[in-house]
Amino acid sequence: MKIGYLGPRATFTDLAVRHLFPREEATPFVTIPECIDSVEEGLCDFTVVPIENALEGSVNITLDYLIHEVPLFIIGEATAPIQQHLMVHPENEGRWQEAELILSHSHALAQCHKFLHREMKGIASERMTSTAAAAQYVQEHPERNIAAIANGLAALEYGLTIVRENIHDYDHNHTRFVVLSKEDQALPPSELVSKGSKTTLVVTLPSDRTGALHQVLSAFSWRNLNLSKIESRPTKTGLGNYFFIIDIEQPMDEVLIPGAMAELEALGCSVKVLGSYPSFKL
Amino acid sequence: MKIGYLGPRATFTDLAVRHLFPREEATPFVTIPECIDSVEEGLCDFTVVPIENALEGSVNITLDYLIHEVPLFIIGEATAPIQQHLMVHPENEGRWQEAELILSHSHALAQCHKFLHREMKGIASERMTSTAAAAQYVQEHPERNIAAIANGLAALEYGLTIVRENIHDYDHNHTRFVVLSKEDQALPPSELVSKGSKTTLVVTLPSDRTGALHQVLSAFSWRNLNLSKIESRPTKTGLGNYFFIIDIEQPMDEVLIPGAMAELEALGCSVKVLGSYPSFKL
Repeated sequence: MKIGYLGPRATFTDLAVRHLFPREEATPFVTIPECIDSVEEGLCDFTVVPIENALEGSVNITLDYLIHEVPLFIIGEATAPIQQHLMVHPENEGRWQEAELILSHSHALAQCHKFLHREMKGIASERMTSTAAAAQYVQEHPERNIAAIANGLAALEYGLTIVRENIHDYDHNHTRFVVLSKEDQALPPSELVSKGSKTTLVVTLPSDRTGALHQVLSAFSWRNLNLSKIESRPTKTGLGNYFFIIDIEQPMDEVLIPGAMAELEALGCSVKVLGSYPSFKL
Repeated sequence: MKIGYLGPRATFTDLAVRHLFPREEATPFVTIPECIDSVEEGLCDFTVVPIENALEGSVNITLDYLIHEVPLFIIGEATAPIQQHLMVHPENEGRWQEAELILSHSHALAQCHKFLHREMKGIASERMTSTAAAAQYVQEHPERNIAAIANGLAALEYGLTIVRENIHDYDHNHTRFVVLSKEDQALPPSELVSKGSKTTLVVTLPSDRTGALHQVLSAFSWRNLNLSKIESRPTKTGLGNYFFIIDIEQPMDEVLIPGAMAELEALGCSVKVLGSYPSFKL
């Protein structure tokens, strides 16, 4: 079984893969679209990518690429805690406060916004494709006094020194990762215990009509189908046109969810199942 | 009157400011939080920042900073078309296809994802704080074969040569900008004709309860209050807890919107008015 993930080695996604697929071969890819393409093209059986962070919200490129480009199925999700540290090359350990540049993933930079504003004010930051890529870049450029924001595994993997631990602004920071597959199949069994199941739908409203979203939610509400999330994403056809991505807190059944879907379609919505899958906590 | 905006000169925000406040002094700031802080601190009377793009969705830092950090009021909004071009320093005009790096704002890079994937595959990209900052960096580094993605005004302002026009993946691309103020006051009159009014509310649901969002939408729906947008943003207290930012397609009145708000509060929601303001098309 071949697993692709958002690399390089030692990203938070890599950490999730090590829990979900402890015995499988895992291949890092540089971007989320490349992860998704690798499954579409058959290079990997599954891919693991981030889909939502407790602080930054949805990872839009994951949602958009699944909706607009490559329609894979979600076959599992895992939630993992996120702890960010400031790290530098050991040669620059004594002068990190005068760093010229801080590198990290955009979400990690945003997650440490208060720390950066308070303690590293005026120091430029640059977005990298991942926290681990930032750590790798710092490892490869000891001659530059630069710092990375990344996790503990990245410090270990790239031989960096952590100079400030837990610099994220808010506790309770978690990221939700999804396992994606070309077929709507069951996730291979592991030792992790599922914390329940979810079903994710993508709903497009018929046209700009007063209360259309209210009608959609009624179809779930009167069936006591609890929604854990509703998220709007632009359809890319103009300002004000949205898809709604809806997470229902139960697995697909034979009556309630199909009934709600049939009603929505009768109302002129288009409805697509992105997946029905178990949920894990790491 | 002093206007702050997301600079440097020649950003899309600058373009919006030139329409909204053609005769006023406008000061560029480097980041969206700095724009917002400048009004809070009294350095500027108003600030203009992007809040939503037709392709990329909400500008999360604007929403999050308004909700969590500095509670300014929205006193106006303007929608402007977005056209992205690829530009290089004139010295590199003949070798742009071998560029080592493409710089732009993250949204602009995302908006040109297909073009970059198709025609500039494998060339690294780096996020800058704005499209204009990318253009300025390219101007200042003629020795490096790098390109920027930015608007036509930026090419003019920074003396760059446009080598590929209109490289954005989708047409109908617009960005919505908001004018923010410390007081909930009327926007100073201009020659622009308003296309209607909006009221924006931030609603926090009481607790994770089946159908709570459905109840919220009912309060608007039965009053025929049309919602042009509903957006969830994390409360930063843990995965699964959201604020809902709701745009109502009418100005604040004395009966309907206050009635809906009172009902929501009686149901245990917290409700805050971000503003009631005219809407312009540039």
